[in-house]
Amino acid sequence: MSINGDHLVDVPAGLRNVVVTETELGDVRGDEGFYHYRQYSAIELAMSKTLEDVWFLMIEGRLPDADDRERFVAEVAPLRVLPDEVREILPAVAAAGPVANPLAGLRTALSVLAAARQLPPLWDADRARRKADAMLVCAVTPTILAELHRLRQGEQPLEPRDDLGAAANWLYLVSGREPTAGHVRAIEHYLISTVDHGFNASTFTARVIASTGADVVSAVAGALGAFSGPLHGGAPDRALASLDEIGTPDRIDAWVRQKVASGDRIMGFGHAVYRTADPRSEMLRGVAVGLGGDLVEFATTVERRVVEVLAEVKPGRNLYANVEFYAGVVMELCGLPRSLFTPTFAVSRVIGWTANILEQAADAKIIRPAARYVGPPPPVAVPVA
Amino acid sequence: MSINGDHLVDVPAGLRNVVVTETELGDVRGDEGFYHYRQYSAIELAMSKTLEDVWFLMIEGRLPDADDRERFVAEVAPLRVLPDEVREILPAVAAAGPVANPLAGLRTALSVLAAARQLPPLWDADRARRKADAMLVCAVTPTILAELHRLRQGEQPLEPRDDLGAAANWLYLVSGREPTAGHVRAIEHYLISTVDHGFNASTFTARVIASTGADVVSAVAGALGAFSGPLHGGAPDRALASLDEIGTPDRIDAWVRQKVASGDRIMGFGHAVYRTADPRSEMLRGVAVGLGGDLVEFATTVERRVVEVLAEVKPGRNLYANVEFYAGVVMELCGLPRSLFTPTFAVSRVIGWTANILEQAADAKIIRPAARYVGPPPPVAVPVA
Repeated sequence: MSINGDHLVDVPAGLRNVVVTETELGDVRGDEGFYHYRQYSAIELAMSKTLEDVWFLMIEGRLPDADDRERFVAEVAPLRVLPDEVREILPAVAAAGPVANPLAGLRTALSVLAAARQLPPLWDADRARRKADAMLVCAVTPTILAELHRLRQGEQPLEPRDDLGAAANWLYLVSGREPTAGHVRAIEHYLISTVDHGFNASTFTARVIASTGADVVSAVAGALGAFSGPLHGGAPDRALASLDEIGTPDRIDAWVRQKVASGDRIMGFGHAVYRTADPRSEMLRGVAVGLGGDLVEFATTVERRVVEVLAEVKPGRNLYANVEFYAGVVMELCGLPRSLFTPTFAVSRVIGWTANILEQAADAKIIRPAARYVGPPPPVAVPVA
Repeated sequence: MSINGDHLVDVPAGLRNVVVTETELGDVRGDEGFYHYRQYSAIELAMSKTLEDVWFLMIEGRLPDADDRERFVAEVAPLRVLPDEVREILPAVAAAGPVANPLAGLRTALSVLAAARQLPPLWDADRARRKADAMLVCAVTPTILAELHRLRQGEQPLEPRDDLGAAANWLYLVSGREPTAGHVRAIEHYLISTVDHGFNASTFTARVIASTGADVVSAVAGALGAFSGPLHGGAPDRALASLDEIGTPDRIDAWVRQKVASGDRIMGFGHAVYRTADPRSEMLRGVAVGLGGDLVEFATTVERRVVEVLAEVKPGRNLYANVEFYAGVVMELCGLPRSLFTPTFAVSRVIGWTANILEQAADAKIIRPAARYVGPPPPVAVPVA
């Protein structure tokens, strides 16, 4: 709310680079191609830790020791089971939106969860309760997404397996089969590397809502909405669709040039922040190569050639493959259907959102900027007609 | 996302007074006790226009003439009827959260609506489609809220009446009775005066989500979450609860002094922006007095005395009754149950949110500020354990 025009503070459009908060959760260094969670390289974490380890790190500020890990895993397992109120409503949710935004169903189900469990406003909850609610939302998210998927496929939903880690459990809930160790580690690399990534629009949305003192689900529901926006980005299925469209290596050059000529974005390439290779893409290329196969060979060829052609037709722009490009390849190789690529992203990112929500909740200051009125000067008398 | 620390722009905490956008929708002048929609005094509009007139004004930028009004009312009427997918899920939604945040059910139902109607991202929709989706959300909101209320009461839901204006229809849907003309105008004053109010946290949230290009429901769902936050404010039932607590005029002074002494907020008094009387409160006092009765007499006595005592114990703070204070009185007199006070606010505010969403959608710039990392410097080597 503006109080008086003369008190207003002008800043760059879209609040670009405007510091809205301090954080200890991590950062992205676009020029270096480096990003971190807490004080650790996110890529190093992805290469060597479990999703639960990183989840614990984000919430607690330190990596778990053996005891922590055991306790945390035991705490999470029962939270994966859907509360009855949520389970009962999912068939209707699945039926209502079979083809729409895959995350709208998650938002609907979480909204029911918030009402059913009477989640308190962050403002009224102590740190332990906030954390418990945040963990519940993260733990139940894969169960909801997998169950909605299976319902839409006409398949029976499955019970979460408490003998499986988070990454393995996700693959199991979707497919109904025990995943291979290779697939589990591949998906776990992806999940860990996408837990958080600086102060993007959905993370910011979560923090704005949290700053009002609202409950965890209110903040996550807002983040899911922002995440669904085309300008937010992050849809790994689109990059894979490009590979399909190109079809064969001999068609790469023509495809890129035609895209550029018609002003289309090339999905899977370029990033708002990275001016060098996207470290997530670099790591996921390695994961994909490890899994092997024709698709990987084609994808690496496309990547190399697209970067070369882009360097030629858009000199100085430094366009590289982004996280979407190999994420889609890795998920496809692990047997995830394309409709679950974006939901898989949500499985990990909800951990980052809730960590941000918890951090924001510790700050009692509402985030509320101003707008400048630029319409005709009031008051104009209201006509009687 | 921060790119490099040295590019970051520091601003006041909570982005206070930081200009995030320009708007033609209106503004609040806290020092003058004046606010406006477009170029018109909001209070003057409330005194002389219908909710539909003001709704049209917010979307179209001008007041409707007779033809506009007829067309607009005819366009809105069928949109009030719940789509089957939403109607079918409401009993489960009502059962899941009978006592929780009353707006969580609205969020759930709108989320189903978005999936069922496959609302396109704002980014992919033309102005006509965006407007149609915004109108649908506003038109269906009272139907959802009233139906959830009736389901929770064990009553049969009612069909919206296309022969009634928006304010009358709301009262009818809740009670099942034809409302009196006096009650309709009283509620209409309230609804019009709460359509919008500067750049508050829920409006800002709606615009952040809209700036990603997401669909209208994603933005409204986020706004509902922010609105539910205790720091956002706006719960007219709390002020009425204070009247109950005070009980009799002779207890006013002791009650206020005790509240101030224990550091409690006095609900219904004080405002983040107004440094003078809240113009909404002034108008609603008049509406309440027009309706008359013991409650009004008590409320005006309490208001007068609370302001006097606050001026004495908190000198220089200029604390006056805010919109909540008489809003609760007016709604009570019009026969609305207290559980519907906040939902009644949502019936009008959703019009303001969607007007802001439409305005934001015309701007292709994402709202994405930065955070400053203040944790231990990375990278620290990840321990092997």
